[in-house]
Amino acid sequence: MDTINVGVNGYGVIGKRVADAVRAQPDMHLVGVADIVTDWRIKSAANRLPVFASTSEAEQAMQEAGLTARGSLDDLLEQCDVIVDTTPKHVAAGNLPRYQAAGVKAIVQGGEAHETTGHSFVAQANYTTALGRDSTRVVSCNTTSIVRVLGALDDAGLLLRARGVLIRRATDPWESHLGGIMNTMVPEPVIPSHQGPDARTVLPGLDVVTIAAKGAHTQTHNHYWTLQLTRRASRDEILDALRAAPRIAFIRMSDGLVALNSTIELMRDLGRPRGDMWEVAVWEDLLTVDGDEAYLTYQVYNEAIVVPETIDAIRALTGTTTDPAASIRRTDESLGMRHDFLTPEHP
Amino acid sequence: MDTINVGVNGYGVIGKRVADAVRAQPDMHLVGVADIVTDWRIKSAANRLPVFASTSEAEQAMQEAGLTARGSLDDLLEQCDVIVDTTPKHVAAGNLPRYQAAGVKAIVQGGEAHETTGHSFVAQANYTTALGRDSTRVVSCNTTSIVRVLGALDDAGLLLRARGVLIRRATDPWESHLGGIMNTMVPEPVIPSHQGPDARTVLPGLDVVTIAAKGAHTQTHNHYWTLQLTRRASRDEILDALRAAPRIAFIRMSDGLVALNSTIELMRDLGRPRGDMWEVAVWEDLLTVDGDEAYLTYQVYNEAIVVPETIDAIRALTGTTTDPAASIRRTDESLGMRHDFLTPEHP
Amino acid sequence: MDTINVGVNGYGVIGKRVADAVRAQPDMHLVGVADIVTDWRIKSAANRLPVFASTSEAEQAMQEAGLTARGSLDDLLEQCDVIVDTTPKHVAAGNLPRYQAAGVKAIVQGGEAHETTGHSFVAQANYTTALGRDSTRVVSCNTTSIVRVLGALDDAGLLLRARGVLIRRATDPWESHLGGIMNTMVPEPVIPSHQGPDARTVLPGLDVVTIAAKGAHTQTHNHYWTLQLTRRASRDEILDALRAAPRIAFIRMSDGLVALNSTIELMRDLGRPRGDMWEVAVWEDLLTVDGDEAYLTYQVYNEAIVVPETIDAIRALTGTTTDPAASIRRTDESLGMRHDFLTPEHP
Amino acid sequence: MDTINVGVNGYGVIGKRVADAVRAQPDMHLVGVADIVTDWRIKSAANRLPVFASTSEAEQAMQEAGLTARGSLDDLLEQCDVIVDTTPKHVAAGNLPRYQAAGVKAIVQGGEAHETTGHSFVAQANYTTALGRDSTRVVSCNTTSIVRVLGALDDAGLLLRARGVLIRRATDPWESHLGGIMNTMVPEPVIPSHQGPDARTVLPGLDVVTIAAKGAHTQTHNHYWTLQLTRRASRDEILDALRAAPRIAFIRMSDGLVALNSTIELMRDLGRPRGDMWEVAVWEDLLTVDGDEAYLTYQVYNEAIVVPETIDAIRALTGTTTDPAASIRRTDESLGMRHDFLTPEHP
Repeated sequence: MDTINVGVNGYGVIGKRVADAVRAQPDMHLVGVADIVTDWRIKSAANRLPVFASTSEAEQAMQEAGLTARGSLDDLLEQCDVIVDTTPKHVAAGNLPRYQAAGVKAIVQGGEAHETTGHSFVAQANYTTALGRDSTRVVSCNTTSIVRVLGALDDAGLLLRARGVLIRRATDPWESHLGGIMNTMVPEPVIPSHQGPDARTVLPGLDVVTIAAKGAHTQTHNHYWTLQLTRRASRDEILDALRAAPRIAFIRMSDGLVALNSTIELMRDLGRPRGDMWEVAVWEDLLTVDGDEAYLTYQVYNEAIVVPETIDAIRALTGTTTDPAASIRRTDESLGMRHDFLTPEHP
Repeated sequence: MDTINVGVNGYGVIGKRVADAVRAQPDMHLVGVADIVTDWRIKSAANRLPVFASTSEAEQAMQEAGLTARGSLDDLLEQCDVIVDTTPKHVAAGNLPRYQAAGVKAIVQGGEAHETTGHSFVAQANYTTALGRDSTRVVSCNTTSIVRVLGALDDAGLLLRARGVLIRRATDPWESHLGGIMNTMVPEPVIPSHQGPDARTVLPGLDVVTIAAKGAHTQTHNHYWTLQLTRRASRDEILDALRAAPRIAFIRMSDGLVALNSTIELMRDLGRPRGDMWEVAVWEDLLTVDGDEAYLTYQVYNEAIVVPETIDAIRALTGTTTDPAASIRRTDESLGMRHDFLTPEHP
Repeated sequence: MDTINVGVNGYGVIGKRVADAVRAQPDMHLVGVADIVTDWRIKSAANRLPVFASTSEAEQAMQEAGLTARGSLDDLLEQCDVIVDTTPKHVAAGNLPRYQAAGVKAIVQGGEAHETTGHSFVAQANYTTALGRDSTRVVSCNTTSIVRVLGALDDAGLLLRARGVLIRRATDPWESHLGGIMNTMVPEPVIPSHQGPDARTVLPGLDVVTIAAKGAHTQTHNHYWTLQLTRRASRDEILDALRAAPRIAFIRMSDGLVALNSTIELMRDLGRPRGDMWEVAVWEDLLTVDGDEAYLTYQVYNEAIVVPETIDAIRALTGTTTDPAASIRRTDESLGMRHDFLTPEHP
Repeated sequence: MDTINVGVNGYGVIGKRVADAVRAQPDMHLVGVADIVTDWRIKSAANRLPVFASTSEAEQAMQEAGLTARGSLDDLLEQCDVIVDTTPKHVAAGNLPRYQAAGVKAIVQGGEAHETTGHSFVAQANYTTALGRDSTRVVSCNTTSIVRVLGALDDAGLLLRARGVLIRRATDPWESHLGGIMNTMVPEPVIPSHQGPDARTVLPGLDVVTIAAKGAHTQTHNHYWTLQLTRRASRDEILDALRAAPRIAFIRMSDGLVALNSTIELMRDLGRPRGDMWEVAVWEDLLTVDGDEAYLTYQVYNEAIVVPETIDAIRALTGTTTDPAASIRRTDESLGMRHDFLTPEHP
């Protein structure tokens, strides 16, 4: 397999970003994207991408809307080595048998249960266990960030126990005229929230408990952690552990990056497509260590953080790259990922 | 002293509520309120309360605005046993010598440093230490709630260590056209935030660390706690400890009280003046206990929670009521405070 | 009929306010309120009002939730002269035959079509045409405000044509954790919006066109009008025409009432139940007249503005008060309505 | 002059976009940008652009912050033919003599008074009157949109009178943690608002009155117009007039573009830098014509709409392109501007 042929089923918040990221990989080819909508979301795609219809009803509706679908989902699958299913929650589970029947490897999102594929994926944590599998699940944005950050501290032997409060964005910007929350917060109705157990589908040993709530903003989650360390440690030890991990970038209050919106604006200034931030943005100067306790705050760009993981998962399933570090490096360079947004990477 | 003569300097969010609460006490008389503004805020007061001018410039300005001040701040002080200073942060400190010179006892707010009066007050925790003092500081809304809730668990011998994340409202509703935050969150630039040390001005032994941030809403703070208990305990033990303390009321997700705005609406439905909630509203069914750890979430109505404490502080300074429980009971009955908002209180 | 027996079916935003307003009328008796919910909304009511179950399923569910309903909707109707139906949009239309069969006069809300009752009601405009009718429809909050304000100018012979932009609140505060809009505006998909034609169900001759949109706030609508006058007129003529009409109150930027939230806070300060404003709040100093054109801005408290109209409609249907002015005066005094929120009323 | 050397003084919302747009012009060279800040805003620029210090204090501060300024504002001016001053409101007026002394042509923003340069600029309306001038003012975002849209109808002889309601975004996203409005609207304290007279600095004959208010959102203004036409006209006539003008693009509710946020998301999907929209987005299917009246709604991306005008103004001042259409075409092609966001442009 010289080039991996990839399809995307579900052209939403994640799907459209995965499609663009696939096109940025020298070892991948985007066969096309499939969806069922016929409005601006897919019309804007149709001007630059091959569009397929996920259902026969959709094929008909697209034709009526003046869109010419390149074919059905089956037509798409026929040309693909891997399909990335980014359909809404719980739809993907139903699609998996179809992918299997077509002999196409499949990646589903964090909205699906771990059991749907039996494997949950975060590149830096368990890339090799996905090698050659038929399918995997790229975990959710919140869980991905937890595995990256807590996993980095765990790798360094520093983490005993983590207790976190996750303030989630209420809705994504594209649909913020529907179903948003206004002038309130909405605590998750159960403590612990599901992200802790979900992180353990990737890192089974993690002692992590999360409390979650929705905040009245539309962009990026914000996590607040109290960490019990395995021993007294210095700030620098913690920072070094985070620096050693991929896909974590530092931001600083002292640089004027003092609120979620500042970081979002910085991504726009950096010329990122759609203003995306694929890295977990950890506030370096908010990190506080007191004896064997540490306090940590970071920002998670939920619309994009799982995109690089998905790209790596494509390579892992196909087995075309067996070294995790090699895949991560290739992905990160293609997207222009950073360890620090204000310091040039290559001196 | 049959009736305590009380003045309020600063007719803002807290001042106006204290004024009304003083008027609801059978053992107190509101002499008047003083301020420097001349707009709707004081004009609406002037129709029902004696208004004084806090400065001579203000006296002039009020006259020009068609308001007749009853006199100066000195005139107000002359008739008062106690003055409650609810002027903006750091103004009260400068006023204290003037109150002392006038022989009037003084209460300042949590915005002032503990050192300004040398005593910080939460009724259930340290009423008796304020008896007969010249002045005290009623701690801030966040700190008051922390002392009430953690103090209750501490009294029951259950609390070893508390780690909390405090999501504060960004601005008060009356001024939400100025200086608000939009579609973002703003973490406090320092961890730990000041509320932990502040709680120790009242309960010195408390092992508490807080991380704070502003959320994009205007009404009520929301606290999320991870509590290390002194031993394994049951949910009921925790609930009983909270029930034993005053000014804590339970709310339940199972009653449909699922977000900050639901509770706020309930206060309006209960006929509360200005929709105020003086109690800390603890989500009973969110309380989770796992071995020797507990997770707790509550809501703090920052505009009103310190009002009952202020009323008690008036009694403590004057020494007219020496029993804390008697003062608390009197205050709570006069305001109609509750232990549960949906279950009728036992008469 | 010495006392009018009134029931309320649907204990939501409007229903709960109508129930309280009925209880404030010396010539009315609230028999009870009916609903189908079993959560905090009705539990808080059950502590102070007779609660009935709107359906038999609800009766069962209430029992399971520990609420004892006083009976069914039929039981409620049996004791009522008038039922105010404040159920969600389009439910009331289905209920009307049942009310008629029970021999109970009925009032529906503005969410129903004019045709459901064949009569649309605004007290100051057409009270007498409702006298003795079996049913009427109190028009929506926006339409009520339009009829009050434009009707006042029309009565004074000043209005030729009105073109308005209506920025509606996105959702009510109690449900702002569901279905709100965030960081956006949502224009109505059709111009003209329905409010112009709806106003003509009450004032058939009005030349009015409206454009509507939802704004990202939860409390009160805000209307902006360009008025073509019948002739050149002075500001004072316009103001006098508005002063001559009931239920319009002036606010002023020069008093610091510069934004929607300032007015809302003033209502809380005035001790209004739930902070309600039943009046249309017209910005006096924003009114601009240029030759035969006038520009006008006002604020509509959508949760409460139709409550006084509903009270008058009860009197009109029963015919117990035949003089519109007498009913309006009675209603307004019972609620404490104002012509100016900052100037004490002269009795 | 083969290539126009351009400097930008003030690297804020507009300045950073102008800098990037200058770099996209084949006939221009960006010498550098100057500012006084030292935080993330300029640090991210310093990695890709020549940065100068607007003041000597700033030069010092930049050095301390680890930034090496290429020189002072004077150094920048020395190399420039044209300086674009995008400093905060009212600063530019004070800078003009300095630019003049340096022999550098200058463009200021709409925040300055018309009198500062004596010329106000919108490319399609009055490009030729700016030819060879020393300075001009590119009018504000709102005014630019008004001149584009109303000017197009005026050019077609269709417009008699325009009355508009302008709901402005409250603050820009980058600074939405400061000075925003929350859960309210803020009407401008004067009617008519300044945009009508401001439009007449470009199109003196326009009969336009505007009422303005701030809405609780951070991105894009939203204008609602009632247009008195010179005669009865058809929708198609209006649409044709708009189509004939540059920098107006149609959007449609029927394509699912139903709210401000949908359009903003579409810009991100189109790969626009920073998600910018330089066009006025007119809702085609909201346009309603009734006899000789028309109703029109459009969306103005305030962060970017003046950027193409600024580019044209650079050419006009230098006189390097004398034909307005040629400059507009060159600018629009370089940026990838559209007449319809969902229909591929004809090559």
